[in-house]
Amino acid sequence: MTDYIDILDRPALEALGIDGYAYGYADRVRFYELDALNHVNNVVFLKWFETIRVRYVQDYGLTRYGAPDDPQLVVRRVTADFLAPMFQNQAYVVTTRTTLVKPSSFVMEYGLFVDGEKKAAGEAVGVSLTPDGSARQPHRPEAVARMIERDGATDQT
Amino acid sequence: MTDYIDILDRPALEALGIDGYAYGYADRVRFYELDALNHVNNVVFLKWFETIRVRYVQDYGLTRYGAPDDPQLVVRRVTADFLAPMFQNQAYVVTTRTTLVKPSSFVMEYGLFVDGEKKAAGEAVGVSLTPDGSARQPHRPEAVARMIERDGATDQT
Amino acid sequence: MTDYIDILDRPALEALGIDGYAYGYADRVRFYELDALNHVNNVVFLKWFETIRVRYVQDYGLTRYGAPDDPQLVVRRVTADFLAPMFQNQAYVVTTRTTLVKPSSFVMEYGLFVDGEKKAAGEAVGVSLTPDGSARQPHRPEAVARMIERDGATDQT
Amino acid sequence: MTDYIDILDRPALEALGIDGYAYGYADRVRFYELDALNHVNNVVFLKWFETIRVRYVQDYGLTRYGAPDDPQLVVRRVTADFLAPMFQNQAYVVTTRTTLVKPSSFVMEYGLFVDGEKKAAGEAVGVSLTPDGSARQPHRPEAVARMIERDGATDQT
Repeated sequence: MTDYIDILDRPALEALGIDGYAYGYADRVRFYELDALNHVNNVVFLKWFETIRVRYVQDYGLTRYGAPDDPQLVVRRVTADFLAPMFQNQAYVVTTRTTLVKPSSFVMEYGLFVDGEKKAAGEAVGVSLTPDGSARQPHRPEAVARMIERDGATDQT
Repeated sequence: MTDYIDILDRPALEALGIDGYAYGYADRVRFYELDALNHVNNVVFLKWFETIRVRYVQDYGLTRYGAPDDPQLVVRRVTADFLAPMFQNQAYVVTTRTTLVKPSSFVMEYGLFVDGEKKAAGEAVGVSLTPDGSARQPHRPEAVARMIERDGATDQT
Repeated sequence: MTDYIDILDRPALEALGIDGYAYGYADRVRFYELDALNHVNNVVFLKWFETIRVRYVQDYGLTRYGAPDDPQLVVRRVTADFLAPMFQNQAYVVTTRTTLVKPSSFVMEYGLFVDGEKKAAGEAVGVSLTPDGSARQPHRPEAVARMIERDGATDQT
Repeated sequence: MTDYIDILDRPALEALGIDGYAYGYADRVRFYELDALNHVNNVVFLKWFETIRVRYVQDYGLTRYGAPDDPQLVVRRVTADFLAPMFQNQAYVVTTRTTLVKPSSFVMEYGLFVDGEKKAAGEAVGVSLTPDGSARQPHRPEAVARMIERDGATDQT
């Protein structure tokens, strides 16, 4: 049985014609993602970006969501650019990378590709907080190291 | 690249320990499918049943959604039984089959499996209407034939 | 400023032409509740039934969701009957009542009305569990009393 | 019966402690808008901004969605800033105004207030297209006039 959100790494993405990313997954538009205009609703793109972000921050070691001493990760800002409409059943690839990492915040960038062509892009600003959420705290060093090494993130920690 | 809603046929489902179905697909719980109780929201199971139904009625030939002379398919009733909670990132298989077909209506049954164990079940009653939706009309004969042959649906047409 | 999910009681509902219910609220279809067929998606009706159920079980005293000694309430089964399509911006009233109460389970019934006409109906079976969810436990007696007194629920406790 | 998405005008908003907007509506957080972290999911704020946008563009006369000669309105970009978490059942007001109008595009700004305090903000860039969506076309003049007069939008048409 296929693991249905298998992560695509840099070589796998390059083989699909997508350069510049080390982290992505493939999926297909569901009927419930369409709106009354019969294409994928704008807000759904942000759900896709959230889906890959939730997996990414765990894989890169920023948080595990749930251990009592785990940093709280919050999203302070999101943006999305809609470049072309998408339709029912269309196969796509979502990608992400951290472009900039500061001591307790970071900027992620998202791409949404169909047959190697970009249909949407986005950004998110994330912040690491103490487990009780009361104050900022530095990211885990191993997560920062992965952002720099795997993604080529600019280091401002 | 994997086709991410590849349909699983009877042998593929049986290999996963799921008997009695000829149609299913595999997927994995997304973060946005959880609710504040930290498990998959009840309503999400009905979205999964919808996802497989939309694909099924096209594959079996009941409608193509969109051709001008296409029958309108409407859902008159749904039910869902929740047998066990589901959690973030869990891999699952959704299955469906038609159990009963009448001249212009039919009953579909759904199963939701994790590691071969049923976590939820459901039913839907569908009706074929004229393209303008004003009256019932008989199902397409080739669709009825597939429901009987592939799924073992009881024939009351 | 209007309290936007003000609960409608029996006289308020009767004034709207809806008989037999003591609990409801009014709202209006949002754009994001439509699907590609340009009417309210079937699954959205179940979200509306959930919305009123979450408020009802707190108001009637079945649980408060969150106090450590609070019963866990789970939904074992839902059904929905779709009687007529609904459209963007349409004003509607959702109603609910408990029809049957047993020692640790109960049956709720839902109605969805536009201008006093029923567009959809539903049911849910709920169960009271111990705070840790490991076993059934009797409903809180004051909740049972309200179900019987306000809703006319059949008492099988 | 209350009209549940009644629009709040400038005096009504000012009475709620919200200055600078001529268009808003009030609502209350639903259970299905929470995520597993037990607060309103980030993406839900963008649904709220969409809900008011859909109503605004019709009220201001940019499009009516559906007449054959109606301009197509598309959203090219959205942003959202999350300033504070929101919780179940919380009452809020969403507001919007056009800040800049160009010949065939415009920038809308959104605010999300609880008890007069801003919890989130957002922007969207919209574009008017020909009815078939093949090219840009100038906005309807009466819509531009309302954006300037009601909202104080900067006029670059």
